[in-house]
Amino acid sequence: MIDLALLGAGRIGKVHAEAISTIGDVRLKYVFDPVEEAACSVIEQCGAVAASLEHILDDHDIRGVLICTPSDQHAEQIKLSVLAGKAVFCEKPISTNLETTRHTLEVVERNEGMLMLGFQRRFDKHFSALKRKIVDQTYGLVEQILIISRDPSPPPYSYMKASGGLFKDMTIHDFDMARWLVDEPIATVYATGQALVDPTTRIEGDDIDTASVLMTTVSDKQITILNSRRASVGYDQRIEAHCAKATLQVNSVREDSVLVLDQTGISESPLENFFMTRYKDAYRAEMAHFVDCLITGSAPLVTGTDGLEALVLAEAAGESLRSGRQVSCQI
Amino acid sequence: MIDLALLGAGRIGKVHAEAISTIGDVRLKYVFDPVEEAACSVIEQCGAVAASLEHILDDHDIRGVLICTPSDQHAEQIKLSVLAGKAVFCEKPISTNLETTRHTLEVVERNEGMLMLGFQRRFDKHFSALKRKIVDQTYGLVEQILIISRDPSPPPYSYMKASGGLFKDMTIHDFDMARWLVDEPIATVYATGQALVDPTTRIEGDDIDTASVLMTTVSDKQITILNSRRASVGYDQRIEAHCAKATLQVNSVREDSVLVLDQTGISESPLENFFMTRYKDAYRAEMAHFVDCLITGSAPLVTGTDGLEALVLAEAAGESLRSGRQVSCQI
Amino acid sequence: MIDLALLGAGRIGKVHAEAISTIGDVRLKYVFDPVEEAACSVIEQCGAVAASLEHILDDHDIRGVLICTPSDQHAEQIKLSVLAGKAVFCEKPISTNLETTRHTLEVVERNEGMLMLGFQRRFDKHFSALKRKIVDQTYGLVEQILIISRDPSPPPYSYMKASGGLFKDMTIHDFDMARWLVDEPIATVYATGQALVDPTTRIEGDDIDTASVLMTTVSDKQITILNSRRASVGYDQRIEAHCAKATLQVNSVREDSVLVLDQTGISESPLENFFMTRYKDAYRAEMAHFVDCLITGSAPLVTGTDGLEALVLAEAAGESLRSGRQVSCQI
Amino acid sequence: MIDLALLGAGRIGKVHAEAISTIGDVRLKYVFDPVEEAACSVIEQCGAVAASLEHILDDHDIRGVLICTPSDQHAEQIKLSVLAGKAVFCEKPISTNLETTRHTLEVVERNEGMLMLGFQRRFDKHFSALKRKIVDQTYGLVEQILIISRDPSPPPYSYMKASGGLFKDMTIHDFDMARWLVDEPIATVYATGQALVDPTTRIEGDDIDTASVLMTTVSDKQITILNSRRASVGYDQRIEAHCAKATLQVNSVREDSVLVLDQTGISESPLENFFMTRYKDAYRAEMAHFVDCLITGSAPLVTGTDGLEALVLAEAAGESLRSGRQVSCQI
Repeated sequence: MIDLALLGAGRIGKVHAEAISTIGDVRLKYVFDPVEEAACSVIEQCGAVAASLEHILDDHDIRGVLICTPSDQHAEQIKLSVLAGKAVFCEKPISTNLETTRHTLEVVERNEGMLMLGFQRRFDKHFSALKRKIVDQTYGLVEQILIISRDPSPPPYSYMKASGGLFKDMTIHDFDMARWLVDEPIATVYATGQALVDPTTRIEGDDIDTASVLMTTVSDKQITILNSRRASVGYDQRIEAHCAKATLQVNSVREDSVLVLDQTGISESPLENFFMTRYKDAYRAEMAHFVDCLITGSAPLVTGTDGLEALVLAEAAGESLRSGRQVSCQI
Repeated sequence: MIDLALLGAGRIGKVHAEAISTIGDVRLKYVFDPVEEAACSVIEQCGAVAASLEHILDDHDIRGVLICTPSDQHAEQIKLSVLAGKAVFCEKPISTNLETTRHTLEVVERNEGMLMLGFQRRFDKHFSALKRKIVDQTYGLVEQILIISRDPSPPPYSYMKASGGLFKDMTIHDFDMARWLVDEPIATVYATGQALVDPTTRIEGDDIDTASVLMTTVSDKQITILNSRRASVGYDQRIEAHCAKATLQVNSVREDSVLVLDQTGISESPLENFFMTRYKDAYRAEMAHFVDCLITGSAPLVTGTDGLEALVLAEAAGESLRSGRQVSCQI
Repeated sequence: MIDLALLGAGRIGKVHAEAISTIGDVRLKYVFDPVEEAACSVIEQCGAVAASLEHILDDHDIRGVLICTPSDQHAEQIKLSVLAGKAVFCEKPISTNLETTRHTLEVVERNEGMLMLGFQRRFDKHFSALKRKIVDQTYGLVEQILIISRDPSPPPYSYMKASGGLFKDMTIHDFDMARWLVDEPIATVYATGQALVDPTTRIEGDDIDTASVLMTTVSDKQITILNSRRASVGYDQRIEAHCAKATLQVNSVREDSVLVLDQTGISESPLENFFMTRYKDAYRAEMAHFVDCLITGSAPLVTGTDGLEALVLAEAAGESLRSGRQVSCQI
Repeated sequence: MIDLALLGAGRIGKVHAEAISTIGDVRLKYVFDPVEEAACSVIEQCGAVAASLEHILDDHDIRGVLICTPSDQHAEQIKLSVLAGKAVFCEKPISTNLETTRHTLEVVERNEGMLMLGFQRRFDKHFSALKRKIVDQTYGLVEQILIISRDPSPPPYSYMKASGGLFKDMTIHDFDMARWLVDEPIATVYATGQALVDPTTRIEGDDIDTASVLMTTVSDKQITILNSRRASVGYDQRIEAHCAKATLQVNSVREDSVLVLDQTGISESPLENFFMTRYKDAYRAEMAHFVDCLITGSAPLVTGTDGLEALVLAEAAGESLRSGRQVSCQI
């Protein structure tokens, strides 16, 4: 039985705790969360014990920690955990600051730590099927990638303000998908964006809620990302890979497969309306992968470097938006 | 230039007149319709001349006639036209009476007449594509056929009363499609039906507006027909052929390919709402086929016998509905 | 903590054991299966203990049993369990014999036992959404129901032989869906069927593998069921409810939402290919419902009577197939 | 009866000649084409007479001319026709040269000529339905436009070389659609592109065959255009308008509505494979609009200025591609 500890028992922490409960040979021994109520709720659910971070890191039985605390604590907790010899699963981002991110990864590398980053979309069965189709090259080389990623509705302004902005909070997932699918370095980034959904976003927070990003890779593949903080049909996540011999698409997931045919037309149900229901199975597969890496010692599919490189693209997009210029990428 | 005459300048007569105008080497010389206004409207449209039936049949230049008069005049006009040496295109039915139908076909045969019947669905590109797929046997033998055929809304009660009832007026097209697709004799017919849309249909007219028919062929293929006089989504015409190696489907045709994705779901446009728009291209192809048969002397794809056999099935369905029994078919 | 016991640790038994492990406040205490290997595999998975049927029924802690043994043991085990005061969840059928089924239900009733039958489709989110739409009558009264239910490929002949035939083994689920959706008594049943997939099925076993069934209800609604033991696209389960104001459909569930657009056309992935993956979530919801009924004392959504009535329809279909007649239903 | 003349009897000239033949009150009196064979084929088809350009422009009966000659003759023939007092329908482009285009429009304006440009997509029923939905504002303001436009396969290299390049030959239609849908000036253009389909395109001709263009409007709407000269599924033309209250889509048009469900999945037929079949009805509606403007004296929906502004965007895209910079637009 492998013992893990959960740092941070908020919304996403609970998702991982539940995922752990469905995996054999592993259990959650400790939960750390200064908010007692949050900790208690997970504890009840899965039979873990509340503990301080120090206590957790001192317990030699603990093989890995799941970092689900607020973003600004990630970097420090990654370093402490790696120094204590624990494997680390960390929700994105490592940090919204590039320098901090680089320094954290140096500590991980120097100590030969294991760090897996939480880009759960790579574990979604639909996107995984797309990736497999691209990799096996039946359909020829990729020429254009289109990622449409729109949330049902904007988060509270307070959340957005602390998130590092649209590119680092929301587009970061799309940057990772793009990198994963083309499997080669990004060469240029150009971004446009505006606060069209809620003008106060820009006025008060200097942020945007609607963005279109156009990138090229070193072999001149073209990648487009379309983002919005609001799509009334639900959580709209689509990817299209135009290849030499076929155009491959992943469509957004409907709530159910009911059709209503009446005088207004032929209506499918709306899309899944929440990323946690949309990616429920992906979160489970992600956690199973982390546990599997822990057991077998193999390297995780998503590393700290993937987090860094997605952040580099987010920074480049921000720079392009401010300057109105195409930004060249070099890591 | 081949000269034709139109008998009956109502709704469907106008459709054929317009189809004729798009075909080269053929023109409408005469229009016969006791309702002067109807005749005039076609005459204006295509430059034909009003004439009596006698005048038309006496004119040696006239190669063929298009019979689009009320159903109870079809049989007599077919016989007169054939005796006058004209090729005949006749809207269904030859007659709603089996004896009259048989007698009419005997006259046609004795005089080596050419008679094509107006089952226009056989000329629809979607159903034709289905037929081709079945014929080429890539997908194995047909095992189950499902025909769903629902009208947008019931015709006026006066029309239904004169039509011979649901099976002879509406299901007759589905009987023909079934025969065409399985290409072997029907062995048994079982029918259920009720006036669910409009109860007065049954009370006043002893007719039904909703029917489900289950037939078998001599090689035990199963055929289901579902009919309703009312479908709020529009003109709903679907066929499914379940074959040994694939299930083949033809879906109903949408008005356009616009999708609206909003909080109520993902909506396609409604279906084409009228059989004349739905089958516009089929009517053209049907008329082009008739002209082609006239020119080349080849036999038409849809003969009087097809009309007779569909009527036999309609009679069998009626008998089954009245008796609650399965009816065996023999022509 | 509520203790349950599992009788029968085969394929479907494991599904229920896994479902139990994801539900709080309940656990599997015992597993009974004469095949030691099967029992062990469940025991390993969930930490239960092997036990004899007698031992299980004698343990006062056991509140309910899950009967997943071969079909011919169901009736006896239901009676024993009810007499021992246990709530019973039983996979369909109670028995393939009508008399045995009736007698078993009498015992259950006399002893005020709780018996829930395993028609898991009622717990499927897609069909549940359809049911809700029908019940709330936004779309008007149901007029025609169409149930298409085709398996990917036939089970081994030995299985089919022991199953009681297509109507009792496979169509039984569709009979239950039909009853559930129309919510009124069936009046007539007419069935056609043949061994089209595998002729030996009929020759050796007097069974069929392809069937079309047409039923009416007491208020003249029409219900069609199309069955086949083989559909190359996968597990094809669709329902259409044609209502006064809309046509409602549930489509079959695809393996994933990937589309491939190439010169052959636009291809969605095949359907889920196995009923256990297709209904995975439904099995979980079904078991959660059983546990909930146990805790709250409320009546289960699917009762023994539902099993009986579906069996009555299966018998009627068989009689219709043999006689070529419409069969009137009375329970 | 209104008399028209056709200049250029090639592929697109024939399309317009056929469209004219289906419209009442108008006929083609003359055909001008130095290639006698081409002229003859149209003459046979519609009963027109071969004539020189001079003869046509001198005939006072001729109300309008349809210019379908090679692109480099358009500007001169527009000017001559306008000076001769004829209304002009001209296939795009007026010229691939911005200065020539501007000068031509000045001549048209000075002489109060009527010039309609052949952007036929505006007359497509699917895109028209989209435009109407945007205009009526039920769905809120447009925020993002996505236009995907891919041809089945590249034209011959000789054609591409003479066409003015991808942006002026192919993307020009998308620039026009974008302008039409957002109905406000474009502010910035950024383009990426490469010869991915056929590397020789770039090497020999300094052209590209795959492009992604990102534009913004003066009110910060975002517009993306994705182009490729090759899509194996057929003629892939889609538009998505993400609005405040809904996302609106027009899907590509399938050859027919047949579905094949087999072990490889669920396949729709490929897309229409040729712009002339895809836009057949649009070409008819376009010509009917031209004739209607001629009769009523109303201004055409697509003017010479629309041609100029689309060309300005094509030039901007070319400049952006060469410089790697965002280009600001001012007309």
